Amino acid sequence: MYLGRVVGTLVATRKEPSLEGLKFLVLKQLDVAGQETGAYRVAADAVGAGFGEVVLYATGSAARQTSRTQDRPCDGVIMAIVDQLEVGGELVYDKAEAG
Amino acid sequence: MYLGRVVGTLVATRKEPSLEGLKFLVLKQLDVAGQETGAYRVAADAVGAGFGEVVLYATGSAARQTSRTQDRPCDGVIMAIVDQLEVGGELVYDKAEAG
Amino acid sequence: MYLGRVVGTLVATRKEPSLEGLKFLVLKQLDVAGQETGAYRVAADAVGAGFGEVVLYATGSAARQTSRTQDRPCDGVIMAIVDQLEVGGELVYDKAEAG
Amino acid sequence: MYLGRVVGTLVATRKEPSLEGLKFLVLKQLDVAGQETGAYRVAADAVGAGFGEVVLYATGSAARQTSRTQDRPCDGVIMAIVDQLEVGGELVYDKAEAG
Amino acid sequence: MYLGRVVGTLVATRKEPSLEGLKFLVLKQLDVAGQETGAYRVAADAVGAGFGEVVLYATGSAARQTSRTQDRPCDGVIMAIVDQLEVGGELVYDKAEAG
Repeated sequence: MYLGRVVGTLVATRKEPSLEGLKFLVLKQLDVAGQETGAYRVAADAVGAGFGEVVLYATGSAARQTSRTQDRPCDGVIMAIVDQLEVGGELVYDKAEAG
Repeated sequence: MYLGRVVGTLVATRKEPSLEGLKFLVLKQLDVAGQETGAYRVAADAVGAGFGEVVLYATGSAARQTSRTQDRPCDGVIMAIVDQLEVGGELVYDKAEAG
Repeated sequence: MYLGRVVGTLVATRKEPSLEGLKFLVLKQLDVAGQETGAYRVAADAVGAGFGEVVLYATGSAARQTSRTQDRPCDGVIMAIVDQLEVGGELVYDKAEAG
Repeated sequence: MYLGRVVGTLVATRKEPSLEGLKFLVLKQLDVAGQETGAYRVAADAVGAGFGEVVLYATGSAARQTSRTQDRPCDGVIMAIVDQLEVGGELVYDKAEAG
Repeated sequence: MYLGRVVGTLVATRKEPSLEGLKFLVLKQLDVAGQETGAYRVAADAVGAGFGEVVLYATGSAARQTSRTQDRPCDGVIMAIVDQLEVGGELVYDKAEAG
């Protein structure tokens, strides 16, 4: 899994029928210091993530292991919202303070 | 998933029999600002995408989760045509204006 | 899928028994302008590709979706020989002229 | 598989229900000389790894081949704790000495 | 598949139970000229490869398509030992001469 920040949304009316009802969010990938890496991913939202939140996302076939994404052509899923990230003994990110 | 723009097509008469009838499109990958990243992908078209359109494509085993690509040796599929892309509160791409 | 050019072969007498009979070709990856990217892949040949030909290859689990590669430890397969590649309205590659 | 060092943890109260009880650790990827590469991965812990330990982690669908991660949206798993790493005839890492 | 050279081994006593008996080797990735690319992979050995040998390895779910690695959390496998590599009409590597 990688860390990401929710930075956007996209609207697509013409799509694979099985994707109906799935919400796609645009994520900027973060490194372990909470900084943007330059990479991004569009992922289905399985947890109700909001704009600006730091999330954990899984890619590949793992992205279909949720009830919302199963058997759908989806290769990225937000599966957790990060509350706290601690790296090297320091609290790098704390949602309570960020919010 | 990643964002891409349809930039080309390819013709292949000698191919795996199971690929018969699949349309392959050449995509240039776009970043969240709608700019080309330099990467590309050849993907099967599951939604009837047209030249110049901005699309969402899935890679890996996800690419076989459509009725057109199931059980075929295909690792990339266009599964949605993007109407609007909003990043950081700004409308980065709007198909109505681009068209 | 990515575009590649067949540049070589390899011989391996000691290998997983299930690979017996599979032909492995060395591919240099091409970009959408038909230029080498610096990346390569060794792929199983499912279509009888020849030296110098431009091909389309799939990677990951897609590579096992052919009768020749099914259930084998193979993560790359040539699934089509490219006749024509058109990008941005221009004919970038034409097998008839290249041959 | 790649080598990594456990450098952190993360807390996520809102997540996919199936992830309940899984422990996620933050790994910095190491190269074969035991140096950090700059890449990282968040992985589920299947072996009880501790802070600072050098581990072996698997990504992709392999990450779901443990009793703890099966059928869960997880694309990275720590599946072994490295005791000794020998490269080019030299002992690059020895847990007994590092500890 | 990619080309690699066996450069090391690792010892791990604490690991996923299903990995018991699998031998993990450290591989430096080679390019089509037989030169190191800087990338590496730790892979399970399915063919009895020895130190310094040039091998072919598969990654992802392909790595579990051998009797030794089936259903195990393993994302890389050595599935062939390369005897000869011919690229661009030249013999880039010949095990008989290298040995």
